[in-house]
Amino acid sequence: MKIAVLPGDGIGPEIIAQARRVLDVLRQDGLPIEMEEAPLGGAGYDAYGVPYPEFTQKLCREADAVLLGAVGGPQYDKLDRPLRPERGLLAIRKDLNLFANLRPAILYPELANASTLKPEVVSGLDIMIVRELTGDIYFGQPRGIAVNELGEREAFNTMRYSESEIRRIAHVAFGIAMKRNRKLCSVDKANVLETTEFWKEIMIDVAREYPQVELSHMYVDNAAMQLVRNPKQFDVMVTGNIFGDILSDEASMLTGSIGMLPSASLDQNNKGLYEPSHGSAPDIAGKNLANPLATILSAAMMLRYTFNQEAAAVRVEDAVKKVLAQGYRTADIFEAGSEKVSCSGMGDAVIAAL
Amino acid sequence: MKIAVLPGDGIGPEIIAQARRVLDVLRQDGLPIEMEEAPLGGAGYDAYGVPYPEFTQKLCREADAVLLGAVGGPQYDKLDRPLRPERGLLAIRKDLNLFANLRPAILYPELANASTLKPEVVSGLDIMIVRELTGDIYFGQPRGIAVNELGEREAFNTMRYSESEIRRIAHVAFGIAMKRNRKLCSVDKANVLETTEFWKEIMIDVAREYPQVELSHMYVDNAAMQLVRNPKQFDVMVTGNIFGDILSDEASMLTGSIGMLPSASLDQNNKGLYEPSHGSAPDIAGKNLANPLATILSAAMMLRYTFNQEAAAVRVEDAVKKVLAQGYRTADIFEAGSEKVSCSGMGDAVIAAL
Ligand SMILES: CC(C)[C@H](C(=O)O)[C@@H](O)C(=O)O
Ligand SMILES: CC(C)[C@H](C(=O)O)[C@@H](O)C(=O)O
Repeated sequence: MKIAVLPGDGIGPEIIAQARRVLDVLRQDGLPIEMEEAPLGGAGYDAYGVPYPEFTQKLCREADAVLLGAVGGPQYDKLDRPLRPERGLLAIRKDLNLFANLRPAILYPELANASTLKPEVVSGLDIMIVRELTGDIYFGQPRGIAVNELGEREAFNTMRYSESEIRRIAHVAFGIAMKRNRKLCSVDKANVLETTEFWKEIMIDVAREYPQVELSHMYVDNAAMQLVRNPKQFDVMVTGNIFGDILSDEASMLTGSIGMLPSASLDQNNKGLYEPSHGSAPDIAGKNLANPLATILSAAMMLRYTFNQEAAAVRVEDAVKKVLAQGYRTADIFEAGSEKVSCSGMGDAVIAAL
Repeated sequence: MKIAVLPGDGIGPEIIAQARRVLDVLRQDGLPIEMEEAPLGGAGYDAYGVPYPEFTQKLCREADAVLLGAVGGPQYDKLDRPLRPERGLLAIRKDLNLFANLRPAILYPELANASTLKPEVVSGLDIMIVRELTGDIYFGQPRGIAVNELGEREAFNTMRYSESEIRRIAHVAFGIAMKRNRKLCSVDKANVLETTEFWKEIMIDVAREYPQVELSHMYVDNAAMQLVRNPKQFDVMVTGNIFGDILSDEASMLTGSIGMLPSASLDQNNKGLYEPSHGSAPDIAGKNLANPLATILSAAMMLRYTFNQEAAAVRVEDAVKKVLAQGYRTADIFEAGSEKVSCSGMGDAVIAAL
């Protein structure tokens, strides 16, 4: 189990440190885990002048899985665009062919109050968003800013999906739906965009291989509404890269505790990059205040999806549930009556619970 | 004041009938209002075989403003795409050059309970979303579904904005911000898409002409989150066509009463098309159950933006507030203790309040 560990920027190193402690316990208990670190994002720029250094690339290509903290920080905002931290993230996704982004939006009962939505609307919320991650308008050519035939400046990007790109993400989504409640909602804008009309056509075709899954379709604008109106109508959602970017962030905020939400980005062979859904939070970096639970839960997803260690994954997830039940809270999820702990304090609690 | 009235499909004719009654009262009281009807959407297809018939086009081109009900219905779902109702909507927007879509998301105090969000999060909500409506990936060329060099089918669309397209929507947005709280948030995905990087650059440039307005920028994924987390941080938001489609629907659902929300789509000279933000609701069509208030409030927006009749606009808006205060509710906003009325019953109440 070779794991490339990329702490990244901001709170990245702090939250990664706590996830490493969890993996260390599992190693002591017998899992053959090896971890090696490399810089990504701003840290990559600081060390090697680029956000996805060759050193990091080599380590990640050789590893079975990648555990990432977060990238980005204000000190990098003035860099040329190709040098910015988030370009490192886009580059590693493309380089490792991590086309399937899984983003759960789960509301932990103990944190129900953190949501801005009424309890009855979100209690028990458990959505899995499957976002295509290496295609669409993120990577489509041509793109750029140029002067057009009329002598006016204009800018353009290309939304583009090939049949095979859609098919492979469809299979991932149907596979996940099979392991859950067998309800899959594909999100498109087929009434306006040919790309998503094609997307819908392929989804319908792949559905014939999964007769037990109930496939539905929803326009992206309606999906953005329905997530607010009645999010519990959803089980698994699948969509393209840009719509998935928007909807998965909206869905995670429904829980009110994005500090709790992990994510996985997988290739065809279940090699994956695992990272918390939240960002690098530069404002609290280095203060031992961050919530490490999303990173710890990302490590659990890694055990499940890349290493097929369901029991170990559940053990970590149960430890997280236990510390919540015990009342431990980092600042982002604190409420009166619970016990406020630091980032490492939360790590201590999880280790104890393990 | 020549108004082209397009009832459209589904509940369109019912809600338009009530808005016409309101405009009739204003005419009796002295406004030189003339109304003529024409079919759009499915009704256009039924009458002339196309969703935006020439007859309708001629009427709308000659009119000063257009009042639209809604388009679409299941009986048109099997039509060839160019014949579908929503294509009529896209065609009229483009034909009349209605590039500025204004979509308010307002929470009426009497309807605070209808929101799925906690009262403290949404009480007093009043956001104006300014969405560019005739550019972006909706209309960008090239587009289509084709076989690529590798012999594989793929589909593509083009996101595209010229400098002048961005400038003119920027001026509309800054102008509206000047009349409100002078806070404008421009939404982009400038960390990934050149088109929106360019968008942001032009916004910053136009901002120099409006030094009193505080301009901020937000990534679209973050905006989708912030609308859930703390929507009251926003005053005016401005964004492109596809992001605006998604965010304006999300924002309107925050109020829980989309049956109350009007919209305006304006050209360079304040000629405009006015329509409720909700759809054609085929399930309740013809049953006299629909909420006509969004359409009536759309007529009020028309009086304000196209005809510069602020007093008349306020008179209509006050009448709507009064019927809410009196406790009248159509089924979509009904709650125990209020008085349930039909679509025409709500029209009666508004006329009485006028
Ligand atoms: C940082 C950015 C490039 C990235 C994306 O848009 O994919 C982020 O928003 C995410 O969702 O991981
Ligand atoms: C019906 C559809 C083409 C339209 C759009 O996407 O613009 C609608 O969603 C809207 O927002 O008016």
